[in-house]
This record gives sequence, structure tokens and C-alpha cells, in this order.
Amino acid sequence: MDKKALFIILDGLGDNPIKELGNKTPLEAANKKNIDKLCRESECGIVDVVGPGLVPGSDTGHLSLLGYEIKKYYIGRGVFEALGSDIRLEEGDIAFRINFATVDDNLIIRDRRIGRNDYGLEEIIREFNEKIEKIEKEYGIKIIIKKGVEHRGVMVIKGLESEKVIENDEHKDNVKVKEIEPLDSKSKITADVLNKIIKEFHEFSEKHRINKERREKNLPKINYILIRGSSKYKKLDEKELFQNRFNCKALFLANPPMYLGVAKYVGIDTYRPLGSNGTANENIFTYYESAIAKKSKYDIIFIHLKGTDSLSHDKKPIEKMKFINRVDEELIKRIKDEFDVIAITGDHTTSSILGRHTSDPVPIMIYSENARKGFVKNFSERKCVKGTLGRIRGLDVIKIVLDKIDKYIMAGT
Amino acid sequence: MDKKALFIILDGLGDNPIKELGNKTPLEAANKKNIDKLCRESECGIVDVVGPGLVPGSDTGHLSLLGYEIKKYYIGRGVFEALGSDIRLEEGDIAFRINFATVDDNLIIRDRRIGRNDYGLEEIIREFNEKIEKIEKEYGIKIIIKKGVEHRGVMVIKGLESEKVIENDEHKDNVKVKEIEPLDSKSKITADVLNKIIKEFHEFSEKHRINKERREKNLPKINYILIRGSSKYKKLDEKELFQNRFNCKALFLANPPMYLGVAKYVGIDTYRPLGSNGTANENIFTYYESAIAKKSKYDIIFIHLKGTDSLSHDKKPIEKMKFINRVDEELIKRIKDEFDVIAITGDHTTSSILGRHTSDPVPIMIYSENARKGFVKNFSERKCVKGTLGRIRGLDVIKIVLDKIDKYIMAGT
Repeated sequence: MDKKALFIILDGLGDNPIKELGNKTPLEAANKKNIDKLCRESECGIVDVVGPGLVPGSDTGHLSLLGYEIKKYYIGRGVFEALGSDIRLEEGDIAFRINFATVDDNLIIRDRRIGRNDYGLEEIIREFNEKIEKIEKEYGIKIIIKKGVEHRGVMVIKGLESEKVIENDEHKDNVKVKEIEPLDSKSKITADVLNKIIKEFHEFSEKHRINKERREKNLPKINYILIRGSSKYKKLDEKELFQNRFNCKALFLANPPMYLGVAKYVGIDTYRPLGSNGTANENIFTYYESAIAKKSKYDIIFIHLKGTDSLSHDKKPIEKMKFINRVDEELIKRIKDEFDVIAITGDHTTSSILGRHTSDPVPIMIYSENARKGFVKNFSERKCVKGTLGRIRGLDVIKIVLDKIDKYIMAGT
Repeated sequence: MDKKALFIILDGLGDNPIKELGNKTPLEAANKKNIDKLCRESECGIVDVVGPGLVPGSDTGHLSLLGYEIKKYYIGRGVFEALGSDIRLEEGDIAFRINFATVDDNLIIRDRRIGRNDYGLEEIIREFNEKIEKIEKEYGIKIIIKKGVEHRGVMVIKGLESEKVIENDEHKDNVKVKEIEPLDSKSKITADVLNKIIKEFHEFSEKHRINKERREKNLPKINYILIRGSSKYKKLDEKELFQNRFNCKALFLANPPMYLGVAKYVGIDTYRPLGSNGTANENIFTYYESAIAKKSKYDIIFIHLKGTDSLSHDKKPIEKMKFINRVDEELIKRIKDEFDVIAITGDHTTSSILGRHTSDPVPIMIYSENARKGFVKNFSERKCVKGTLGRIRGLDVIKIVLDKIDKYIMAGT
């Protein structure tokens, strides 16, 4: 029978030693007996996901782990968000991530994230769509704005030539908003359109009844749009799609749009497990169930879990450790009998001291029946250095994993 | 006195842990005290011969170990087989590997390898050459067919433009033979010529007296030619030849034509040791003797031994281990006093569980007087991970070895 692989990506898995954890990393401190047991039968190593000394974004980290060179295939985050939000893109569409934000009367940004509370946001967006029609007609374009999780959203514009603009999200509060500016002559019209959308949204939402309700609830206003991740959609050639590039059928299980979007971009089937939420309170077991339910149709299934990363950004190493404990119990415990090959790694290190991604390599373990299992007894950033895989690059991981289910790439004869 | 290096390539050396060997690899299980003793004075590491996650062929694996980028220098296997069979090639000649095979009356392939028994084959080929003349005249070309080991052979055609055809060897029995098909307009005539040769050979050999004799001996008929490894010869520039590229004189000792062919292609002298046979029953000692006899004229001598690979393809890990034992005794025992630098590695891993090449890295050890010897006490796939070389690329190996005999490449000043 054909072999099956499971590839688990724990977002932001790598970390630093933490004082409160006895100078262990969250992964080292975790009570993860199932992972460690599997680890002893695995090949272990550390991975430079996009390259030594380079800090991976979640998008470039995932592209690399899927085997796609970021120099060639990274086209910006907006497109990934849009694809993952089930917006149908056509070649040339331009896409942006957006934040709904709060500005004061002087257009000073008071909260980039509307208090991470999306009360009434859906309603504002729905009603704003009527205003958008006017802009669409004026420029002969099509604009799609779609809400994401919390304050997040995505905007796609069809019919404009260039996405190359200076964006207006500076990633900080208490600064005055800036106009979108063109980066070249072709993007002048794009900047005009974006500034018009933002202005219209500000005027429209400022006096919206939802904002009265939000004030009553002590929530910051929803009255501004911040834009970033500008990108233009380019379809991959048929032969570049994952299935053809690696001669193998893959499924990607995740919740947040961006991750599903990266997978879609390279032609991998995607599925959002029922009951999942992409947060630190994730229902991890639903990923296990989805993987089992779907595996007959695929050669390899990816599982992406976001919790490890979110908790690191929030500087909660102990919670991160507990999330790993749950992964061990709810996902790994039963998995060994179900797949021939099981890889566990991260898309990057997220330091829960610094609260940001770092370039530190991430640990990897690849279980297979015939593995050159080594001397690593515990899966961790530091122990895996001694594994039989050594230090490898993110781009090579998928080829190594697929060889173990006989979907290998032969050089020569 | 100038330093001398010996570079030993044990074909398909790497392997997986094997249950019957106490979960050791054949190399780990081998009783190889001479290799291990040398190992303790060596720099050790693991090698991705063509690249991490990529499965090397024997041809690409060797090109890489000789320091030649496969993207630029790999031109297909036929040329290597032809060069190694002492056929003098000129730029533009096209070459193929051929199998002599057995088909039934309905042109179903019954044995791709004429029972691996070449009784009478030489005679058939010799007499078939007269038939070939007719085709040569018709197309104004020159055709050379030469027997190799067992059912194998090589065919070179001079005077055709393109080698780009769909070959007729599907690597399996019990399928109907297919016509050779052109892949572009230029190769139409090539396909015609090949189909004519194959048809002529079938008609001629079918009723040949040798096949009567073979039937009496219960051997399958020799009545068909299968073609693969199409390639077109391109001469390397003078400055690309090994001697000029690395400023050093090299000799390659091997038996099977392909390996000698790769060496010849890059301008390395070749020698087939007297009494060698390129099989698992190799006379290993003759390689030792040849290396000693020839070393005064060369800076580096390569020894290629095929047995490790053949036994892995046949899924005989215990025999593979015994072959390594013999290498230890017949080749390594006396070698240390003869060379200043001794490298031992493989061209790829061949799993004796899967019976195929895999992408798993191969171990390497490089002995030299001033080596940064490390903590590796036994030469093996897993122990070498801890060596002072770490995980390196096949392409870099030769440069590392040559530096140790002072034939180094200086970058800058």
C-alpha cells in the first residue's frame, strides 16, 4: 500500500531558554512524552527555514517548508490572505491585508486593532459596500473587502495595474495616519483609489450607529483602514503546482486564512477543521480527526497549529509550553499507527522573551520505519542539533520527507 | 615530496538500520577495524551528494563527487557508457545504453535482461554489424553497437542531429514493446533510424542459430533491443578538464563502463584493474595493487567499488556488510602508509530494505596527517554526523580533499 505522511507545523515553535522554566525553552520544558517517544525513532535536526540568519515571516516560512523558493514565489502577503479568505483571484488582481483601526479627531492612530474586538464590524463592512460602488464605477474597477479574525481583513481590487504603493500601516499607535503614496507612475491611480476608499470609510464609519454602541461598551471606534502586504496575484504554471512538482497529492489543514492561502497558492487542497479557531484555545483534536478522515485521498497531510506562535508574541512561554503539552496529548498520542512518516517542525522561532520572530533555527524530527534514528532522546531546539539530519534548509525539508514515502526526486539515472 | 591522495567511493555505501543486523546499518555492523582506526584520525561528516533531499543517480553522484555541477555538466547516461566502453566520441555523437532483451511472438517483453546470461551475444552482435551497414548507407550515418556486462550494451550513432526521443525501455517485463518516438521535429529521423535498427535486429536475431543453442540451454532468446539514457556528446572546454580545473593529475580505477565514462568525460585518466569484474565478487585487492603501481604519476587516485550498491539493490544487507569487511581487509589495511590523504565515502545511499537509491546523506571520512580529527570512533552514517566536517555537499568534497594535498583553490588573495 502507498505510504502516507503527516507533516505538523507548530507555528513559531522554536524559542529561547526561559528563566521561569528553569532555563529551558517551552519545548524543552513541556511534558511531551508522546513526542519524545516518537523522537527516539526519528531522524532529528535543526532547520534554517528561509536561510541562516534570516527571520522568516509566517508566509515565507511556509512557502519554504512547502518547497518553494521565496525569491521566485513570494509575491506578498495580501494574495495569501485573499486566497485563504476564499476570494477567487484572477491573474493581475491586487490584494492587501487590512486592519480596521481607531483614529481620533486629529487622525492620530489610537488603536491599530480596534481593541481586538470586532463587535459590529461585519455590519459596517456590509453597509460600506454601497459606498464602494461609487468608487468602482468612477474607476471601472471591482473592490472586495472581507472581514477576517478580530480586527483583520483583506481587500482585493480587480482592474488596477500596480500594487506598488507605500502603505499606511506603520505598525504603531499614536502616530498620525499617512496618505498612501505611489511608488512609481503606474501606481499613482492605485494610491488614489486606496486613499479614496480610506477617506470614504472614515467618513462613513465615524458616524455609524455601531460606533455609538461600541462607545457604550467601552470599545474603541471602528473608523479607519490600515493597509499592508500589497501584492499582485500571479498564477503558478501547471507544472509548478505542488502535485506536479512533487508528484504527490497534498492536503493542508489550518484555520487562519493566510496559511490556507499559501497552500492554495501552490495548488495544495485545503481544509479548515470543523470547530477549529486558529487561536491558543485551539481544538487540537479536530485536526487529528480531520487528518484521519481525509488521509485516504492524499499522500501527505499538513497540519498547521497557530497557538505556539500567538503565545510567543504575547510573551507567554508557560502557556506556550502548555499548548505543546496539549499537542502531545491530543494530536501525537494516537498518530503513530495512522501514518508511515510523521514530521514535526516549526515555520520559524518566535521568542517569547522578545515577542517576535527570530532567525534561530527550528528543531525538526522525521519519523519513519527505516529512519536512521540517532541519539536524540528529547525533541528540542538544542538536543536536535545532535540528530542525524544535522542542520538543514527549510526548502529541502519537503524533499527529504517525500523521499520517505517513495515520492522522491531522482537526479540522473 | 608531493602529497598523494586516495579517494575511495563505495557505491551506494549509505543504508538504513537493518533488523537482522541488530538495527545497525551494514556499515555500522561491519567488522572494519582498519577503517575505524583510520576514522579516528580523520575528519568526518555526512554528504548530500547532489543536494539535500535529492536522490542521486550513479552518474550524477559521481559527477558531483568529481566537482562538476550536474545542472551544467550532466548530459545523460549514454555518453558515459559509451566513453567508458572505449568508444571514441566526437562532439555531437549521440549515445544510448541498450539492453538485449527477450520478446515473445506478440512482441511482449518476457525478459528485459535475457536471463542476465550473455551466451552467444557477442557472436550475434558481430554478425548483425553487416545488417547495420545497410542502414548506415541509407542515412549516411555511422552506427556502433558494443556489448557490455551481461545483457548490457551501448549504441552510438554518428551523423544524426538530435538525441531527443521517447525511449522504449519502460523498466518492466510483460508489456508490449513500443516504437521509439521523436520528441521534436529534429529527432524524427533519429526515431526512424532507431526503429529500423530494432526491427532489423529482431528479424535477424530471431532466427539466429545462437537462439537455438540458447533454447537447448534453457536460456531466453536474444531477440530485441531496449534503449534508454539518450544523450549527446559535448566535449568539455580545455579549462574545464579536471587537470586544469583543479590543477592536479587524477586517475580513476573502476570496472563498470559508466564510472570510467564519467571520469573520462571530465578528462580524468582511467584504468580497469586487471582481474576486476565490477560485481559483488570483486577482486578488491587488485584495486589496491593498481593504486600502488600507478600512484607515482598522479596526485589523486580514485577507487570505485560497485559491490556495496549491487548488494543493496538485491536487498542483501548482510552480504553488503561482508563486502565492507572485505574492503577493510583487502584495501584499507595496508593503505595508510601509501597515501598522505585518504577519503572514503559513497556516491549515494542505496537502501537494502527498499532496494533503491535514497536521498539520505552518505558518511565521509577524510584522513590526513594534520586532520582536525574529532570524536568519531566508528565510520558510520550516524556517527559521522558528529564529525568535524558536519553536513556538506557532494560538490565541495573534492575541493576539501585536494586542499589537503596542497592542490587548493584560492578565493582572492
